[in-house]
Amino acid sequence: MGKKKFNDAEEYKSYLKSIANLPEGFKAGVTSLKFVPEEKKASKPLSMNMSLLLLDSPVSAYSAVFTKNAFPGAPVLVGKERLGKEQLQGILINNKISNVCISSGVSDALEITSSIEKHLGLKEHSVFPSSTGVIGWRLPVQEMKECAVSLCDNLSADLLDVAEAIMTTDAYPKIVRRDFDGGSIVLVGKGAGMIEPNMATMLIFALTDFNLTGIDINNLLKSCADKSFNRISVDSDQSTSDSFYLVSSGKRSVNLDQFRSEFEDCCREMAVDIVRNGEGTAHVLEVRVSGAGSAEEAHIVGKALVNAPLVKTAIFGNDPNVGRLIGALGDCASSFPYFFRDHVVLKIGGETVFKNRSFSMNDEKEKKLSKYFEDCSMPEKKDGFPPHFKNVVIEVDLGLNRFETVVYGSDLTYEYVRENADYRS
Amino acid sequence: MGKKKFNDAEEYKSYLKSIANLPEGFKAGVTSLKFVPEEKKASKPLSMNMSLLLLDSPVSAYSAVFTKNAFPGAPVLVGKERLGKEQLQGILINNKISNVCISSGVSDALEITSSIEKHLGLKEHSVFPSSTGVIGWRLPVQEMKECAVSLCDNLSADLLDVAEAIMTTDAYPKIVRRDFDGGSIVLVGKGAGMIEPNMATMLIFALTDFNLTGIDINNLLKSCADKSFNRISVDSDQSTSDSFYLVSSGKRSVNLDQFRSEFEDCCREMAVDIVRNGEGTAHVLEVRVSGAGSAEEAHIVGKALVNAPLVKTAIFGNDPNVGRLIGALGDCASSFPYFFRDHVVLKIGGETVFKNRSFSMNDEKEKKLSKYFEDCSMPEKKDGFPPHFKNVVIEVDLGLNRFETVVYGSDLTYEYVRENADYRS
Repeated sequence: MGKKKFNDAEEYKSYLKSIANLPEGFKAGVTSLKFVPEEKKASKPLSMNMSLLLLDSPVSAYSAVFTKNAFPGAPVLVGKERLGKEQLQGILINNKISNVCISSGVSDALEITSSIEKHLGLKEHSVFPSSTGVIGWRLPVQEMKECAVSLCDNLSADLLDVAEAIMTTDAYPKIVRRDFDGGSIVLVGKGAGMIEPNMATMLIFALTDFNLTGIDINNLLKSCADKSFNRISVDSDQSTSDSFYLVSSGKRSVNLDQFRSEFEDCCREMAVDIVRNGEGTAHVLEVRVSGAGSAEEAHIVGKALVNAPLVKTAIFGNDPNVGRLIGALGDCASSFPYFFRDHVVLKIGGETVFKNRSFSMNDEKEKKLSKYFEDCSMPEKKDGFPPHFKNVVIEVDLGLNRFETVVYGSDLTYEYVRENADYRS
Repeated sequence: MGKKKFNDAEEYKSYLKSIANLPEGFKAGVTSLKFVPEEKKASKPLSMNMSLLLLDSPVSAYSAVFTKNAFPGAPVLVGKERLGKEQLQGILINNKISNVCISSGVSDALEITSSIEKHLGLKEHSVFPSSTGVIGWRLPVQEMKECAVSLCDNLSADLLDVAEAIMTTDAYPKIVRRDFDGGSIVLVGKGAGMIEPNMATMLIFALTDFNLTGIDINNLLKSCADKSFNRISVDSDQSTSDSFYLVSSGKRSVNLDQFRSEFEDCCREMAVDIVRNGEGTAHVLEVRVSGAGSAEEAHIVGKALVNAPLVKTAIFGNDPNVGRLIGALGDCASSFPYFFRDHVVLKIGGETVFKNRSFSMNDEKEKKLSKYFEDCSMPEKKDGFPPHFKNVVIEVDLGLNRFETVVYGSDLTYEYVRENADYRS
């Protein structure tokens, strides 16, 4: 991944600060407001951040992929409606409330974004809404409209400000950047729970000043999402709000193949960052599946292993309980047309633990693997920065055919339960 | 369910004692031994229980359903091989080690069971093995053989002794019984984690003295498992060892329809008992799906809701975060050919919380539902008896067609994580 270890939050932030400037043609603003949700009148005021990503001029060179959840949030509905039809000049992002399944959700979102369009004299429908947070509460429309206008008057934020403002239960801000050929690609992202393929309560905004057509952007976005964000899982829930935008200001020319390679790399780095910062994540699992009978089966196996609660809890406990890996593999493979138990080889951290239909474990190997898990572990409560970039590597060779994949996931910890048992209180 | 509330473990046990006598034609024995696993030489000795269920004479009137996991344990392989071919006279059950994926697993199991056959002069292959516990360790064959012989000499146990001896992380023993027409059906069961349809690390032994043919038993077993044990999920893992036996001593005649109805009822009661005693379970979820487009879709929706970690943690926290239910429903329904958001009606504890594509929540309803969850909650650490028999009832009407189902599951708690992070230590 290229990222070095950070010793404290300050060091991490100063690293992010050094990669936080906006690509040419973009500006950003960040502000916050207090509100009391209509649905929880008795509660004390909550704080919401609003961020605006703004282009100098409207562009057609953008695309987005959204959640496939059958109850998409209003911002997803608006984004889907506009894709390929409307030009984009800005994205307005709020945290705290995701604006999902509210009868006035779409009109609320439009009321707020159009107040920005009017204030700045932009084209109608050129500011896109994006929201994350509690499902089922209504946005505080009046407060947000007022705040949106003041936001337009101070567009001096950098991407670290944005990365911090869009956080919900994220422990630290996340930015990934590549500079080459005089231009740059920068991704800011948030996402900590509800992380599962087909996107997650994950908002990712990729900004670039490299010149690409809308069609290229659309193709790149889909193929790179499949190879990165659709291969991670924190808790197997697919959110109602996941959105991944790629927007170009078109200022610099670029070789498309090089762009693709750098962009893919960025996406993978951000995807693993999202897992590492998953709610309560104490270990990042990297499951490398090979020898699968089909691409789909490879994916099923990878996902089954990173999502099995008994595997996740064992790894949290630094317990090389390899029986649970075999249990989870056998569960998901029970529906495969071909599956040969005798061909399966399982490795953890490079050590063979299962082969020829039986376990190759002993006391020494148990201790070694337990130490390996400990070495890869992170404190459940992250202190504002990623403690390291190590993954628990699990290799599964199914010995059937040439298909392979890599899937990332997290363990299951007390902290995950704690954060999600009282998220709204 | 007919079961009353119990005030303490003593009251619960005396209730079980009152229903623990064996049906006519059966005997039982229970004993225990100490051993050190080959794979963990350095560990202190562990304790294992062995139980024997024995018929007066061998019968063909038995059947079993087993896990569909692609790595079944040796006892499952032996049972599948014998079904429909060999007569059954006994079942030898051990806890602590599940005998899965050990190269000598089948011969180990046969060595132990045949020592009983020889000692008692029974037919070859008439004593069936059944194991639950850690995957990947080898059975202590010598110790178990010695113990098996002494087990045969003291067959005065009742089904409470057996229900207690087969426990692993179960908090309390589980027995379900129906007496009618001069005969009885009694189920003893264990299972606390790895609980998911297609059976679970769940061992259920149903004994009856009613006279049924092997074919009737086979049909009954499959249809009743589908309506009970295949509709529960504690943590979505399908174990390698799940087994559900129904064995008849054939002493009394019975009407088949009446038997089916009573047996179905027993299975459902035991299935919910298993969920209630799930690892760390603090709430039993009862998801009633109606109006589904097909039986399969009804099942998918029910399972998706009881398995969604964010739903499970919210309910653990007594938080009526109905947005997460909609998120999980939208996730699983994204693949349905027909799905109308406008038709969906969602109720919790009889209260409508979602209708006409939007939430019907307010401050008062939030409080009421939170109280409802609290009222249905149980201590995570169970004190040797089920604290009550209340379920959190979630109704989902999809408004598509006439298909429906009921699925049971549990919430996700600290205690679940704790038990599974250090299960083997």
